[in-house]
Amino acid sequence: MEKIDVAILGATGTVGQKFILLLQNHPYFEVKELVASERSAGKSYADACSWKQDIPIPTEVAGLQVKGIEEQLRSRILFSGLDSSVAGTAETKYAEAGHLVISNSSNHRMDPQVPLVIPEINPEHFRLIYSQQHKGAIVTNPNCSTIFCTMAIAPLHREFGVEAVNVTTLQAISGAGYPGVPSLDILGNVVPYIGGEEDKIEAEPLKILGALSGDVIKPVSIKISAQCNRVPVYDGHTETLSIKLKGNPRLAEVRQALLDFSGLPQELELPSAPEKPILVLDAPDRPQPARDSWLQRGMATVVGRLRPCPVLGIKMVILGHNTVRGAAGAAILNAETMVRQGYLKNGNRLPKSQRRARTTSLTESR
Amino acid sequence: MEKIDVAILGATGTVGQKFILLLQNHPYFEVKELVASERSAGKSYADACSWKQDIPIPTEVAGLQVKGIEEQLRSRILFSGLDSSVAGTAETKYAEAGHLVISNSSNHRMDPQVPLVIPEINPEHFRLIYSQQHKGAIVTNPNCSTIFCTMAIAPLHREFGVEAVNVTTLQAISGAGYPGVPSLDILGNVVPYIGGEEDKIEAEPLKILGALSGDVIKPVSIKISAQCNRVPVYDGHTETLSIKLKGNPRLAEVRQALLDFSGLPQELELPSAPEKPILVLDAPDRPQPARDSWLQRGMATVVGRLRPCPVLGIKMVILGHNTVRGAAGAAILNAETMVRQGYLKNGNRLPKSQRRARTTSLTESR
Amino acid sequence: MEKIDVAILGATGTVGQKFILLLQNHPYFEVKELVASERSAGKSYADACSWKQDIPIPTEVAGLQVKGIEEQLRSRILFSGLDSSVAGTAETKYAEAGHLVISNSSNHRMDPQVPLVIPEINPEHFRLIYSQQHKGAIVTNPNCSTIFCTMAIAPLHREFGVEAVNVTTLQAISGAGYPGVPSLDILGNVVPYIGGEEDKIEAEPLKILGALSGDVIKPVSIKISAQCNRVPVYDGHTETLSIKLKGNPRLAEVRQALLDFSGLPQELELPSAPEKPILVLDAPDRPQPARDSWLQRGMATVVGRLRPCPVLGIKMVILGHNTVRGAAGAAILNAETMVRQGYLKNGNRLPKSQRRARTTSLTESR
Amino acid sequence: MEKIDVAILGATGTVGQKFILLLQNHPYFEVKELVASERSAGKSYADACSWKQDIPIPTEVAGLQVKGIEEQLRSRILFSGLDSSVAGTAETKYAEAGHLVISNSSNHRMDPQVPLVIPEINPEHFRLIYSQQHKGAIVTNPNCSTIFCTMAIAPLHREFGVEAVNVTTLQAISGAGYPGVPSLDILGNVVPYIGGEEDKIEAEPLKILGALSGDVIKPVSIKISAQCNRVPVYDGHTETLSIKLKGNPRLAEVRQALLDFSGLPQELELPSAPEKPILVLDAPDRPQPARDSWLQRGMATVVGRLRPCPVLGIKMVILGHNTVRGAAGAAILNAETMVRQGYLKNGNRLPKSQRRARTTSLTESR
Repeated sequence: MEKIDVAILGATGTVGQKFILLLQNHPYFEVKELVASERSAGKSYADACSWKQDIPIPTEVAGLQVKGIEEQLRSRILFSGLDSSVAGTAETKYAEAGHLVISNSSNHRMDPQVPLVIPEINPEHFRLIYSQQHKGAIVTNPNCSTIFCTMAIAPLHREFGVEAVNVTTLQAISGAGYPGVPSLDILGNVVPYIGGEEDKIEAEPLKILGALSGDVIKPVSIKISAQCNRVPVYDGHTETLSIKLKGNPRLAEVRQALLDFSGLPQELELPSAPEKPILVLDAPDRPQPARDSWLQRGMATVVGRLRPCPVLGIKMVILGHNTVRGAAGAAILNAETMVRQGYLKNGNRLPKSQRRARTTSLTESR
Repeated sequence: MEKIDVAILGATGTVGQKFILLLQNHPYFEVKELVASERSAGKSYADACSWKQDIPIPTEVAGLQVKGIEEQLRSRILFSGLDSSVAGTAETKYAEAGHLVISNSSNHRMDPQVPLVIPEINPEHFRLIYSQQHKGAIVTNPNCSTIFCTMAIAPLHREFGVEAVNVTTLQAISGAGYPGVPSLDILGNVVPYIGGEEDKIEAEPLKILGALSGDVIKPVSIKISAQCNRVPVYDGHTETLSIKLKGNPRLAEVRQALLDFSGLPQELELPSAPEKPILVLDAPDRPQPARDSWLQRGMATVVGRLRPCPVLGIKMVILGHNTVRGAAGAAILNAETMVRQGYLKNGNRLPKSQRRARTTSLTESR
Repeated sequence: MEKIDVAILGATGTVGQKFILLLQNHPYFEVKELVASERSAGKSYADACSWKQDIPIPTEVAGLQVKGIEEQLRSRILFSGLDSSVAGTAETKYAEAGHLVISNSSNHRMDPQVPLVIPEINPEHFRLIYSQQHKGAIVTNPNCSTIFCTMAIAPLHREFGVEAVNVTTLQAISGAGYPGVPSLDILGNVVPYIGGEEDKIEAEPLKILGALSGDVIKPVSIKISAQCNRVPVYDGHTETLSIKLKGNPRLAEVRQALLDFSGLPQELELPSAPEKPILVLDAPDRPQPARDSWLQRGMATVVGRLRPCPVLGIKMVILGHNTVRGAAGAAILNAETMVRQGYLKNGNRLPKSQRRARTTSLTESR
Repeated sequence: MEKIDVAILGATGTVGQKFILLLQNHPYFEVKELVASERSAGKSYADACSWKQDIPIPTEVAGLQVKGIEEQLRSRILFSGLDSSVAGTAETKYAEAGHLVISNSSNHRMDPQVPLVIPEINPEHFRLIYSQQHKGAIVTNPNCSTIFCTMAIAPLHREFGVEAVNVTTLQAISGAGYPGVPSLDILGNVVPYIGGEEDKIEAEPLKILGALSGDVIKPVSIKISAQCNRVPVYDGHTETLSIKLKGNPRLAEVRQALLDFSGLPQELELPSAPEKPILVLDAPDRPQPARDSWLQRGMATVVGRLRPCPVLGIKMVILGHNTVRGAAGAAILNAETMVRQGYLKNGNRLPKSQRRARTTSLTESR
């Protein structure tokens, strides 16, 4: 298989750097273009970037010249870690120019024509791209905290039906990017507020778990309440969940549903897919962000402390790596899924016919 | 008013040290005796203690000779910060010997004859001591996390009725004592488990909010679900609360009930009483443990982010200083309340008549 | 004594906030004007400022309207916590306009006509202001790390003569202002570099310990080598010092010289003066920033672990509160000293005659 | 090559766990026996151990039954991470029983007959084992902070001659083992004292850099002064060094000597050898423990900020992974070196003839 050229939008940022890290030696994709702010444009990536990863910049990327956001790109797939202040218009522009934008930004997530996908849960939503009025398309993955929470409730919703979820997050500082959270605000402290985060967690799962009918997604009706906190942890979002299920299933059944969960990425054995999307730990004091975030190369949703909840029925603690499965890794897994599902079969551009052929798959449309 | 001699049980521990700190220059009490493990007995307090407070050991205490747990004490009131491994039998022994044990330990909290008191909420429960079969008596305050949670729901329960509470705690390391939490476990980490803590938070409020009838407390029936986490914060427990109230009151009413709350300690203007037991902050990102724990000299319960909860009705973030209002300060406020209510009027011992006069107050019993 | 009106330059910054905190209820000074960037100008201080102190904004200051850096000021003394990017020209402008600028900024510290003063050490250097070609004058205090280091070596230099000092600093994050150090850079990490800091520590003590002759300061010749590190500590700079003294004095003599040290602020019993400028701790593991920074209300230089050094002769660990004694408190103590020495006796402006009367004191000059 | 059976002494401790981690799939060694305190003896390793590593316990080790310190062992090589309270007598006993004890403990390091080896520097010192009056032998590696410091000065000593070294350490909490440093002592704090550490850093390099003559090591005479601090960092010891060299070489020459340094482990391409023992970073703010400790799989000594020192001549910042190159990895590299040098050629026991054949190598002695 010939590798597909990809560009990283927002390449110098936290998510952009993680894209570069996770795409190193990727079997499907090859990073050919890097896009950042005008301040960085024209410089080599090594010069433009304040690299914060724990391995050096991959040499094949270090020397690439950074492009400005106004420049035309040649790559077919654009992985976007753009800041939400610019992602909205920029991603639309790139999609209009014919690129497939695989975005981690929040701007287009709730757009009716934009798929919001966790490929273990709703890969069929990718088909929504045919309803987009672009030469290319925009595809998004959820907010980091949403991903872990939705991953944990998806098998329960499928098996029993979920009525309500109460979630409190303890989120790592890497989720805020760089420079992000000032150390004076978080060293030895908790900040019980993350702008916009609670709204995302309360809204996005309803779309992800919703059913695609024609080119419309009908959201599920689950009541979700989120309280989000920043804590002095480097990587790994912890969440406490209380869940109300239909039919009052036994704890052992809930546990089994979590253990049995698997999806298309596992079936296709995608390069970035975790062997099991959900891990269940039995130790009384796990999962812990400093110890368990890297399980399954940072792509797992780790569940622990599954037990009865006197208020809503069951409760548990979940954990995931916010910049891997919660961001860049989620986008890459989306792209891998689309490649293997045949969405990119038509040369270096999505076919024009897509604009009309909305409900059929990309390959069928030819 | 002549000062009352007091002893500190577990004087070298974290709570014991806080007792000494908070009792410095106290208008009612004078620290005359210090009790610690056999290892410390016989040494001066300064030698026996690994002092961890940010002001030096008060000079009047530094030179006191530490007593062993087997020695007889002369002080009328004993403030107990004993470890739960020894508090059970030791406190009973002291009560049998005629002392009034004001305990922060968990061992006797749920004993039917032992008052479990937050004096803003249920000071009338002190009367329960007359039902104890001791020459003295044992009085307890709740677990640190329980205190803040119960303080926040008490006015709502009084005003509207509380049906259910979902609480997630983010607890400071000082709550685990010294040496307590190993740094390897908590630096840059979250530990989603604190042994026994969730059970306490789910059970203790029911007794505190219960009604005393004769010498029996009838607990309220509120469903409480707790998830407890240790976070790398020095002092100050943060809690996220979702609360289901009867009658679906408006947010403004809830807010007003919190603001209006006041109790006996405020009425009596007790030395350790916060001017207002509950503070409501309006900033979107408060309360924060590193910034707000010392409000009202560490005796306040600080509420912020009051807002609707899609699942249970209302939600909020609360904060309190775990070793002040949540431990030593709570016990001292209990003692101050009892003194001013006349429970100690009969010389240096509780009257023998108490053993029979169970349902009348100590002063009435004479 | 009538209070002197003062303004705070850079009032919304970290140092500016500390000025406001430390000047609350000050017996000499009253904060009447606040100056900040154009972005803040026109707003009330409470609105303009992201207040980070652990007590609320003093009410008398909260409502003051912030002025821009271009506006004329009426206050006699201006405490400057301006950022070094603007302090250079702004402070000169204010001095030309007749104000006495008491600055914590680094820009003018090494100017030949600008006093760089630790009032326990070189208060006579204030006289240098008469050599300035301004209607007003600029006075500076040293860099935070310099202050503690110079305070510790001053008595040794006086008593024995210091030949060389090797210093490694472990500096708190509050020294970098707000937003300052990103949490991603410092949580669980050490950054072995602070821009410009080492140069300051190596140069400033030579001027402070120098002798004023006419209107020229002759620097001492001590070899100083500094290595500066940022550590995840909130407040309090720790420094390890190795010192080469002339004549190889015994450790007990060195210790005595530190204990005996006292200066003009102690003699005058100035409001912000520590009772003893240098405290010597005997515990083997002190001083520690989280425990000892607030000794003497944050105005002490704390010395511990005094012992022989196989390389340079003696070594020790020192500590000081970087934003109190190391910044705002240092400037305020400078101002207090000048007031009590009579430098401000001539109404609301420094006398014009100062421009010529360079070598005589301000009072003598009249 | 047949694998050599090895045992881990102190297997449940921090260093013991790291031994197990680093020996997983080792080409020379196979972990066959685990020794821990009597409390753990008889349990499976998984049950006995509070495993703190970020990957699960290797399955081949998890089920091994832990042995008590009194039991006889069969393994030829014993890697010792024993606590210094028991290592002294235990290691001697094992050596007498014929085992080759490769120890990370400090007890025997300065014994005249015990090699204290960094194999890049003084592998010829291993020969000292022939002077030991045991059937087996004890071999040690230096203290963690000593290793990095000695590695950095060794090439300079060889090339120019080192006269004096001033070192301040900023040491990670993992160096204190588990439970180790209480979080209340180190969160947001610095502890400027580590018991015994400074003495080790001042003494051990003199033996390591010393010359073996017959069966006596003649220590070098370098003046070393150490000041040791614990900082809230998980892994990675940072050290600031000021060094006085003979002949006042230029900075570029010093830099070249560091870059050129290589030793026997590199020549033999040993499995645990770093490709380059010393890495020199050019970024102004590196090395940093959170970012650079894992360079060369944790086996490198990382040097940065090489620059002139006004007091001693040159200064630099160095960093190393304290539990890898600074402990378990150091011991394993010692063992690998000995294996490849032929010290273990005589079956499963060191030959009796070793007791007399002191100055010849083990293979020559047959």
